[in-house]
Amino acid sequence: MKNNVKIAYIGGGSRKWARLLMSDLAMEASMCGEVRLYDIDHQAAKDNVMIGNKLGALPEAKSKWNYVYAPDLASALTGVDFVVISILPATFKEMASDVHVPEKYGVFQTVGDTTGPGGIVRALRTIPLFVEFAKAIETYAKNAWVLNFTNPMTLCVQSLYEGFPGIKVVGNCHEVFHTQSILAKITEKHLGIQGVKREDIDTTVAGINHFTWITKASYQGVDLLPVYDKFVKENEKEGFYNKEESADRWFFTSHEKVKFDLYLKYGAIAAAGDRHLAEFMPLNHYIMPESRREAFKFGCTPVSWRENNKDMLLAQTARLVSGEEDVKLEPSGEEGVRQIKALLGLGNLVTNCNVINHGQVKGLPLGSVVESNALFRNDRVEPIFSGSLPLAVTYMTCEHINKNNLVMEAYRKKDLSYALRAIQMDPLTAHLSEADIKAMFDTMIQNTKDYLGYYFN
Amino acid sequence: MKNNVKIAYIGGGSRKWARLLMSDLAMEASMCGEVRLYDIDHQAAKDNVMIGNKLGALPEAKSKWNYVYAPDLASALTGVDFVVISILPATFKEMASDVHVPEKYGVFQTVGDTTGPGGIVRALRTIPLFVEFAKAIETYAKNAWVLNFTNPMTLCVQSLYEGFPGIKVVGNCHEVFHTQSILAKITEKHLGIQGVKREDIDTTVAGINHFTWITKASYQGVDLLPVYDKFVKENEKEGFYNKEESADRWFFTSHEKVKFDLYLKYGAIAAAGDRHLAEFMPLNHYIMPESRREAFKFGCTPVSWRENNKDMLLAQTARLVSGEEDVKLEPSGEEGVRQIKALLGLGNLVTNCNVINHGQVKGLPLGSVVESNALFRNDRVEPIFSGSLPLAVTYMTCEHINKNNLVMEAYRKKDLSYALRAIQMDPLTAHLSEADIKAMFDTMIQNTKDYLGYYFN
Amino acid sequence: MKNNVKIAYIGGGSRKWARLLMSDLAMEASMCGEVRLYDIDHQAAKDNVMIGNKLGALPEAKSKWNYVYAPDLASALTGVDFVVISILPATFKEMASDVHVPEKYGVFQTVGDTTGPGGIVRALRTIPLFVEFAKAIETYAKNAWVLNFTNPMTLCVQSLYEGFPGIKVVGNCHEVFHTQSILAKITEKHLGIQGVKREDIDTTVAGINHFTWITKASYQGVDLLPVYDKFVKENEKEGFYNKEESADRWFFTSHEKVKFDLYLKYGAIAAAGDRHLAEFMPLNHYIMPESRREAFKFGCTPVSWRENNKDMLLAQTARLVSGEEDVKLEPSGEEGVRQIKALLGLGNLVTNCNVINHGQVKGLPLGSVVESNALFRNDRVEPIFSGSLPLAVTYMTCEHINKNNLVMEAYRKKDLSYALRAIQMDPLTAHLSEADIKAMFDTMIQNTKDYLGYYFN
Amino acid sequence: MKNNVKIAYIGGGSRKWARLLMSDLAMEASMCGEVRLYDIDHQAAKDNVMIGNKLGALPEAKSKWNYVYAPDLASALTGVDFVVISILPATFKEMASDVHVPEKYGVFQTVGDTTGPGGIVRALRTIPLFVEFAKAIETYAKNAWVLNFTNPMTLCVQSLYEGFPGIKVVGNCHEVFHTQSILAKITEKHLGIQGVKREDIDTTVAGINHFTWITKASYQGVDLLPVYDKFVKENEKEGFYNKEESADRWFFTSHEKVKFDLYLKYGAIAAAGDRHLAEFMPLNHYIMPESRREAFKFGCTPVSWRENNKDMLLAQTARLVSGEEDVKLEPSGEEGVRQIKALLGLGNLVTNCNVINHGQVKGLPLGSVVESNALFRNDRVEPIFSGSLPLAVTYMTCEHINKNNLVMEAYRKKDLSYALRAIQMDPLTAHLSEADIKAMFDTMIQNTKDYLGYYFN
Repeated sequence: MKNNVKIAYIGGGSRKWARLLMSDLAMEASMCGEVRLYDIDHQAAKDNVMIGNKLGALPEAKSKWNYVYAPDLASALTGVDFVVISILPATFKEMASDVHVPEKYGVFQTVGDTTGPGGIVRALRTIPLFVEFAKAIETYAKNAWVLNFTNPMTLCVQSLYEGFPGIKVVGNCHEVFHTQSILAKITEKHLGIQGVKREDIDTTVAGINHFTWITKASYQGVDLLPVYDKFVKENEKEGFYNKEESADRWFFTSHEKVKFDLYLKYGAIAAAGDRHLAEFMPLNHYIMPESRREAFKFGCTPVSWRENNKDMLLAQTARLVSGEEDVKLEPSGEEGVRQIKALLGLGNLVTNCNVINHGQVKGLPLGSVVESNALFRNDRVEPIFSGSLPLAVTYMTCEHINKNNLVMEAYRKKDLSYALRAIQMDPLTAHLSEADIKAMFDTMIQNTKDYLGYYFN
Repeated sequence: MKNNVKIAYIGGGSRKWARLLMSDLAMEASMCGEVRLYDIDHQAAKDNVMIGNKLGALPEAKSKWNYVYAPDLASALTGVDFVVISILPATFKEMASDVHVPEKYGVFQTVGDTTGPGGIVRALRTIPLFVEFAKAIETYAKNAWVLNFTNPMTLCVQSLYEGFPGIKVVGNCHEVFHTQSILAKITEKHLGIQGVKREDIDTTVAGINHFTWITKASYQGVDLLPVYDKFVKENEKEGFYNKEESADRWFFTSHEKVKFDLYLKYGAIAAAGDRHLAEFMPLNHYIMPESRREAFKFGCTPVSWRENNKDMLLAQTARLVSGEEDVKLEPSGEEGVRQIKALLGLGNLVTNCNVINHGQVKGLPLGSVVESNALFRNDRVEPIFSGSLPLAVTYMTCEHINKNNLVMEAYRKKDLSYALRAIQMDPLTAHLSEADIKAMFDTMIQNTKDYLGYYFN
Repeated sequence: MKNNVKIAYIGGGSRKWARLLMSDLAMEASMCGEVRLYDIDHQAAKDNVMIGNKLGALPEAKSKWNYVYAPDLASALTGVDFVVISILPATFKEMASDVHVPEKYGVFQTVGDTTGPGGIVRALRTIPLFVEFAKAIETYAKNAWVLNFTNPMTLCVQSLYEGFPGIKVVGNCHEVFHTQSILAKITEKHLGIQGVKREDIDTTVAGINHFTWITKASYQGVDLLPVYDKFVKENEKEGFYNKEESADRWFFTSHEKVKFDLYLKYGAIAAAGDRHLAEFMPLNHYIMPESRREAFKFGCTPVSWRENNKDMLLAQTARLVSGEEDVKLEPSGEEGVRQIKALLGLGNLVTNCNVINHGQVKGLPLGSVVESNALFRNDRVEPIFSGSLPLAVTYMTCEHINKNNLVMEAYRKKDLSYALRAIQMDPLTAHLSEADIKAMFDTMIQNTKDYLGYYFN
Repeated sequence: MKNNVKIAYIGGGSRKWARLLMSDLAMEASMCGEVRLYDIDHQAAKDNVMIGNKLGALPEAKSKWNYVYAPDLASALTGVDFVVISILPATFKEMASDVHVPEKYGVFQTVGDTTGPGGIVRALRTIPLFVEFAKAIETYAKNAWVLNFTNPMTLCVQSLYEGFPGIKVVGNCHEVFHTQSILAKITEKHLGIQGVKREDIDTTVAGINHFTWITKASYQGVDLLPVYDKFVKENEKEGFYNKEESADRWFFTSHEKVKFDLYLKYGAIAAAGDRHLAEFMPLNHYIMPESRREAFKFGCTPVSWRENNKDMLLAQTARLVSGEEDVKLEPSGEEGVRQIKALLGLGNLVTNCNVINHGQVKGLPLGSVVESNALFRNDRVEPIFSGSLPLAVTYMTCEHINKNNLVMEAYRKKDLSYALRAIQMDPLTAHLSEADIKAMFDTMIQNTKDYLGYYFN
């Protein structure tokens, strides 16, 4: 049992991610302590304090955490053991520009927060922020473990290393878990059994965030690659779909058909949602024209949905704070709390995360941020060797990593022309003329200029 | 003075390249010996023997070489000091497929022998040949120096290493020389002097063949980068053009506007003909639509021209052999003979060539074939460090190298699907759907199947 | 439960290691199958068959394995899932030369089977054998997992890769376990608790076999480095000793004083027996003069002890086979059977082993064989990143790896002079003149010539 | 012709090196300009100004340089094109400690300024100085080329990179030239000709300073390796000696017997003076016992000779300044001035120098300072690929490089214990106990403490 654990939560004003963590913490009996909430929306942080404390007061809560409002980074960070970062870089207004301006040039983006023109411009405004976070962490909490949940994941983590090379950081994403869940379902079907949990699927994970791959998978000695192969071949046309979505969320729906198609072409299991995967491939493979998207049964997520959803969450927050609505404990399915436990020495954990490549993904550049498995133990995150991706996947991934390096170079040199080159290298823009790419980029920069001061000073 | 030098010439039936070398040899006083001519078109080899011996008999010849017909590789190679390789992989019929089939899919190729779908399919039939050449060289002449003049250069040289890792090989190409000539002209203009030779321009060369770059240039202590910069900015619109071409060769014409545009974007001097450079960039940057090609003042070379030209050369051969036309000595502008001299210890030579990357081009993969400077001395070719290319150029070049590796993998695994992936990665095909790429590739393979037996056995 | 598991055991005639495995197998309920025993001493293999079957017939046995005598490698290997290799290269007569000839030159070796002149000459006769084993495995059981227990571990594993680059192999050694046991004891003392098992100590392992280091250690969230530091400083003089040894085994005794001294100098926990560690350091650090060995409380093991022990084991074998003495089940403390379970998918295992360095030990050459942690799962051994050793330890280890490469080069070039250079590089011979080293080496080669035919043909 | 070349000379108060350069400059017609002399012995700098100006006034001088006294680094460096560094770190008193204290422990050093305990302690006091020089160069002359002549060469150059990673530096040493002279002599003998200059010998150079090797050598197409091989085998016993030395300089005498012995053992031509080479090998190979040194016909240079020599040079300086003795022009045999010419664009130069390893010496760590050939051209020094050293030489060299890294780490961590480990790794100390090494080191540090303030603050 670990008492007195200190966690700083940066961001979380969006209400969703912070609450998932607060709920997971309350349901974990083996530790307790203090959580300091910092958000540039101070009221949001204060609201979360109230909700967090209410969660801890629930009779079914297994531990009690003290939630505290932190007015600034220094007071949030000083002396903490863990830092969780989950921010929205700028606002949905800027994200709307990232996602929807390119549409005028025929570049539809399913998510637009990771790669493509949208991901790149989002990265431009995120990198300076994360470099500053890293420097603050070096100053106030240099031995703390940092868990990042913010996108674009790869460049966020790279920026933290940029700001503080000795930082102890992992980037967390649940996309691989969802693919493990699919494998669990397929396993149940194959073996005629029930109750296979995604945690029971042993997967070898390699790649970069949202373009991640499972190269080996097994369940208790059963090699799942042939099982998956058979399943994909039988379901190639229909895809795989086992939950009902409300009509307003159709654009989150995935039938795994992109995943299956990538498997059939490259021989490894793409391990992210179809909407994410599609963005890493040439535009005309999955996203365009619209009929193709429909055939592959996925949609693009409009930023307006996110705005509406935010309003709903805001309203709910008000109800939770006022007591009009009761707070509830629900497991999030995320691994942040399990990682914190392992890092405190409370049991070992093997899971995937985003860290520096020390060689664990063969064929990807050393020193770049990759997604692979790691062993989490007391004060240690030790990447686990994954071997190689299929050759063509290795090369596509290298290209995305190189593209990211150009974005980092834009930061290092304070020169946006590097970012323009990055957009030119992106497979979503291959159909565009240089002039169109330039016009698109200029508009996107103009729209988000309020948050790009770093490059203009 | 070196007597008794033994050279094997593989190919050369095309009449052009072999004769340039024979002419250069006859004009070089410091060495003589034997040249063995081998070609699968045996008559062509025999004709060249006659022409070679006639050249040596000219009063103005400075050395006399004994030209000998070699009926097979073994007799060509056994015990030679040098092997020159200059072949046409298959015939112009196959080359017509390489170059013109893709046009039906909107993929126009200016040359089509190096990169793009044409270069890749050409490579598929070339690699097995060159692996065999390498094995024969290991067997019959393992200490010989090999000078390759065949395209696709990078993959030809890589294939020679594949067949015989200890091979002593350089790949030669004159494209950088032409760029040096441009620099010489600009230098004359800048300094108000005459008689600057391209050999007097000191250039630092880095990249891969036909996508080669000059990162530093000087003439007797004058840094030519600012001089070039000024010239490009003044001539950006008109380009640079200083010779008259006959109308039927308009498609060889280059006004260096691609070169200038690349300089303005990336900050280094692209050092190959515009037609070659254009093929390495996204299709819509320079080649398409046709109006863009016209604006950049270059054209695509139809294979029909090559066929007509071949007929003219054949007719000329007949006249030369019969004595109807006199043989003539003319300097070729190539460096093969200068390299041979240096490798025999007759003076040192610094020039660019295609060799394994031991680190001389920073940022490109170790072990891949690159174009850089090297010091040629007695029995040694020692690459000279070039430093790095501009970051975005490094990444584009890595992508082309990775693409080539996929083509090599098609050879290694006897699996053409790797070549299909290579074509998909090529920037000339980015506008095409996967289905179109597949259809195009299948047609190209079908058309050239007679020369692809290796993959189907 | 896995039925029908097939294991080949190569060697084991020494009676000890084979029986430990047979005992562990019989005590493991979750799998059963067939074990094929092959030894160049065929009677020894047949005796082990009898003993193995008797063990399985014991009432307390949890699984029954079918033990079979294999007359040759082909019948031992064909179609097996696992290959265990535990041989004595040559006989104790050759080992006596390895260990005791150098003594005439003042080079005392505590073990003499891993490094130093003894380890190197032992390696010379072992490498060709292991290359042959690897080739046989490629032919008869290319998907099998190979568990090697033979010394010199590093070069045995390297030789298996040399013979069959795609081999799935781990090299196993219990030395780290003993150090974990010491840490467990220290932990009990520190926390005032009982029952800490060595498996509960989480260690980060890095180095090469027998010169292995623990760079991080913890027990349930307690960082053990400061605990170890305190313990070492308190016990530096007396060392640590908690078992009684019979007088005739005094030369196996270790009081961990070498280990403590290395910790105090380099700042990481040396994780092998003192006798092994001492051999990797300059001779005069621990081994010479004898008074120093005494001060550090360890001894050199004479080969005569091994010979006597073998006679005892032979006599015991006769009694076990005849039934004069009863067979008994005892846990070995080794991890072979746990690894086999994990590789069959019966639970995951994190443990240390000897495998190729893919980057998991930073600072040691990629491609060399290192000892690090790995995750054992269904059909996978995935090395776990260890980070770096202290800088001076990294460099000493590099030197030992380079020395090993010279021995491999002696094999590759069939040229013993490389091995002579290796001995010259060894820190145990630094006081010797070149002439003495040469004389010593020649004698050692002469003495063991019957087993060095490879180099003389 | 280059006018207005600006050179800063740091150090040179020793009178020898500065004057050689001044003499070479005066004999070079193609450039002139200003030389600023800075030395912590200000009078020495002022004396050199007078002597330099006298040299330029000689009728046989081909160019006139303006020599100027610089009172501080800033005025010496601001705006110069070249910086020459040739200092004595501390005084001969400290050097006497470096060289002679180890003798009490049986560690005789032939030179003691490069490797061994003497070289390491000398490096400790030199590194902080050179880091400061580099920072000053970054501040005042960041585009200048730096030519270092100071020992320990490798660590001096590494320190300049440490202080200013973008520095343009080469380290110069004449030892390879002397070996080229030997080759020239052997070539004359072999070919029965006269007048072969050392510059005409084409050598491939690889290694680290003073442990440098020639792996290939030729003269006009004649491979000199077999010629050298024959010569060495015929002269192994007597060595090679072709000049008379005054009795007081016997300890500089070299009969090349160490060089020949290394060739016979390792198969490449060691290319430094025997006194330097011997220090890199285990002490008992060449240096100890004294009878061995005598058999190999070389001696250790006492620092007292250097002190006496300095007095003589000081007296001569007084005479030159007063006019009692006439200044004279003599070619130095050094390449500094030829390098300066080439860097100004006045002709290309291929020569050996000490620079960062970008891969030009295969097998030595990337990023370490190595000695190899380079092409000097206008504002460029481009290393030339040398290939590999013999395997055992590669490993010995790696060990010396690692040892140097430990010394750099002592600087970086301000922790002298790293230097102690470096001395322990040195092959000159292998016979010593740890206690003796520690005592020796402590004495050496104590003796030179006045110049080690950096480590104690």
